[in-house]
Amino acid sequence: MPSAMSSFKVQRLLQTSCSSSHCSGLQQILLLSTRCASFASQDRVEYRGTHSNSSSERERTRTVAAYYNQPAIDAAACKVSVRLTPSTILYSGKSKDGLHVLKSAQYLQKELPVRIAQRIVDFRNLPFIVGCNPIILGVHELYIRAFNILHYFPPIETDEDEREFSIKLQELLEDHKDVVSKLAEGFRDCRRHIINEQFVANFLDTTLTSRLSIRMLAQHHLTLRSNKPNYVGIINMAMPLKDVIERNSKFVSRMSLHKYGRVPTIKMSGLVDATFPYIELPLEYIVPELLKNAVRATIESHPEVEEQHLPPIHITIASNEIDFVIRISDRGKGIPHHLMRRVLEYNFSTAGPNPQAKSPESDSNSSSPGNGLFSDMMEAVNPGPVGGPMHGFGFGLPTSRAYARFMGGSLEVQTMQGLGTDVYLRLKHIHSQAQPFRI
Amino acid sequence: MPSAMSSFKVQRLLQTSCSSSHCSGLQQILLLSTRCASFASQDRVEYRGTHSNSSSERERTRTVAAYYNQPAIDAAACKVSVRLTPSTILYSGKSKDGLHVLKSAQYLQKELPVRIAQRIVDFRNLPFIVGCNPIILGVHELYIRAFNILHYFPPIETDEDEREFSIKLQELLEDHKDVVSKLAEGFRDCRRHIINEQFVANFLDTTLTSRLSIRMLAQHHLTLRSNKPNYVGIINMAMPLKDVIERNSKFVSRMSLHKYGRVPTIKMSGLVDATFPYIELPLEYIVPELLKNAVRATIESHPEVEEQHLPPIHITIASNEIDFVIRISDRGKGIPHHLMRRVLEYNFSTAGPNPQAKSPESDSNSSSPGNGLFSDMMEAVNPGPVGGPMHGFGFGLPTSRAYARFMGGSLEVQTMQGLGTDVYLRLKHIHSQAQPFRI
Repeated sequence: MPSAMSSFKVQRLLQTSCSSSHCSGLQQILLLSTRCASFASQDRVEYRGTHSNSSSERERTRTVAAYYNQPAIDAAACKVSVRLTPSTILYSGKSKDGLHVLKSAQYLQKELPVRIAQRIVDFRNLPFIVGCNPIILGVHELYIRAFNILHYFPPIETDEDEREFSIKLQELLEDHKDVVSKLAEGFRDCRRHIINEQFVANFLDTTLTSRLSIRMLAQHHLTLRSNKPNYVGIINMAMPLKDVIERNSKFVSRMSLHKYGRVPTIKMSGLVDATFPYIELPLEYIVPELLKNAVRATIESHPEVEEQHLPPIHITIASNEIDFVIRISDRGKGIPHHLMRRVLEYNFSTAGPNPQAKSPESDSNSSSPGNGLFSDMMEAVNPGPVGGPMHGFGFGLPTSRAYARFMGGSLEVQTMQGLGTDVYLRLKHIHSQAQPFRI
Repeated sequence: MPSAMSSFKVQRLLQTSCSSSHCSGLQQILLLSTRCASFASQDRVEYRGTHSNSSSERERTRTVAAYYNQPAIDAAACKVSVRLTPSTILYSGKSKDGLHVLKSAQYLQKELPVRIAQRIVDFRNLPFIVGCNPIILGVHELYIRAFNILHYFPPIETDEDEREFSIKLQELLEDHKDVVSKLAEGFRDCRRHIINEQFVANFLDTTLTSRLSIRMLAQHHLTLRSNKPNYVGIINMAMPLKDVIERNSKFVSRMSLHKYGRVPTIKMSGLVDATFPYIELPLEYIVPELLKNAVRATIESHPEVEEQHLPPIHITIASNEIDFVIRISDRGKGIPHHLMRRVLEYNFSTAGPNPQAKSPESDSNSSSPGNGLFSDMMEAVNPGPVGGPMHGFGFGLPTSRAYARFMGGSLEVQTMQGLGTDVYLRLKHIHSQAQPFRI
């Protein structure tokens, strides 16, 4: 078992390697992989600035091969991840002695490296040419780094250990927050190399939902320790669905106003008073994604219409003993027939000057990254390197559907070409008698 | 080729046999089959009122075996049916010399017996115990009778022949108008004998859609010859979709008022001015079926609510170059989860005192025919032996879906349990560039 000191050295090294890598392409691959390989393999491979062509080739082979030599990851990936149901969380949430926080940290220290290692195995199994894409490799490295940070963290025995662990967790959540955007960009970049689209779609479904569950677990611990009132960890014991939707409506409206100078009214009806225990995290991703699509379709299909005459977006809430449904209806002219089967594919975005009437030819226009209006909009709202959730890379709907399915629900699209689109997000209640989902 | 006289004899005999058969069960089977077998087989089997037990058995075997001995049907069933697209109908509709009416009749004289014979083959291939059900056998007999009437009709060479043929066609349409209700009743009666539900569902899909196309062809001819303005045969050259929906809304509202004493408002929005060439016949079946469900769910889920406070039913119309969509949204609390997968099955009806919250146990309560409220309602509106389109036998949705698919479209149900249901009827335009459907 390595000492705390050695693990901190590893972290420092990792942080340096990742923050300083402004070089790109193969150089970056080599640089990153050499450095990362250095903790994993027993005989350290030192990165040297200059070398002859033949030694460069040897070096390259060595560094790429170093991805094999990660015995700790191999060992962790073989373990079974212990999954929790929301009911488990609810009923084992808090103890009066406060020991639940320490126990939760200890659980995570065992559990997270296993899950991260399994994701690393998936990155290893991508087609070689895809795995070599600098952005995808960057995410792969982020996972290796996270694995090392957590795996080499000293055993958590005291409250002080737990505090340090939680700081680390919080940092990791922050470091990984753009992984979805990065994967979206990476897979768009290497789209031409992808032969088996279904394989990649499966990889993304698994990676993204696993990421969601890792984040839920981490967030659960952090909320648990901060003892947020009305919450048992990530579970809001009385979540007013209306508030979640309103918050996200305001967020999307602000972005729309900033980008387009106008925004359609968003109306809510149905069981607007529905309040029940639920987890906000996945909703905070899915709801704005769906609203964004509805707003964009409404505005772009009514280019000459003043704000007050834009057809409103109708959100309808239903809830019953088993699940709840959010229907988002827009009058944005619908998704054309020839695009319909594609809107739930990764890396397919209708974003463009006239998204819902785009010709199929323009799909191939994938070489201009971020040409989606919402990607620009995001950049305008969030100037800086962060893409955020509105990246326009065509990940919104498929990711939302993967999340919904992971949460035991579904996402279905009914489009009425010429008029508008209805999206149905259906999610199981966490106290439902039906088969609960597992985090 | 038999003479016109012999064919008329056959018809007379058939009409007598069918109208006089008030006996039921096996007796009816024997009676009907004996009589029908008599024209088909070369050596006539005479029905005799009384006979010994053993001769009765012999008789029974003989009459049932007589279903094999229908050489004209066998021969016709082997022929390929010539299917028309709506575009063919549009572009070959009328000629100035008026010969198109004669040609149309000649086409039907060839075509209809082939199609009817193919349906008879399907009846023959039902499980024996199902085929023996008196009501199903009654429909089978109706088809045999129709086959004989059309097959033995003398060649159509003059306008006078055409006139007689058209009278016959009109009569047949009338005689067959309750076939859907009869099949619904028959299959409900012998539900316990059905082992392979999918087989029966396929039989019904084929039988019902084929019936629709036969009726469309017959109606086409009759409309063509009556030279209805604005129509090319069955195609209304400028069908205002709104009018079709309004007409059916009024019909269903009247029925609802009669049965329940109240009716929810039916609102229409979207592209309400959409007008295009289309065929009303299938809409006249599907639209009231869907409206009936929406009205019933609304009223029965709000038992204490006064008419003016009932949540309205919203009908939304969309239309584009390829197809048009009718969305019917109710706030009738939705279809419970455990019934959802069944509402598109034949012979499953939610009709009952509280249809959308009915327990699964009560499904087996199939021995009480017509306990669906709409069946009662229909009887109240249409007293007499005729069941009509609102029979409450659980044929409405599956038949509507089969019709929609046959017309190159779809019928999809999105339910929001606790709130309401949205049904999407999508149908291809008949001038669409996409693969047209065939009648």
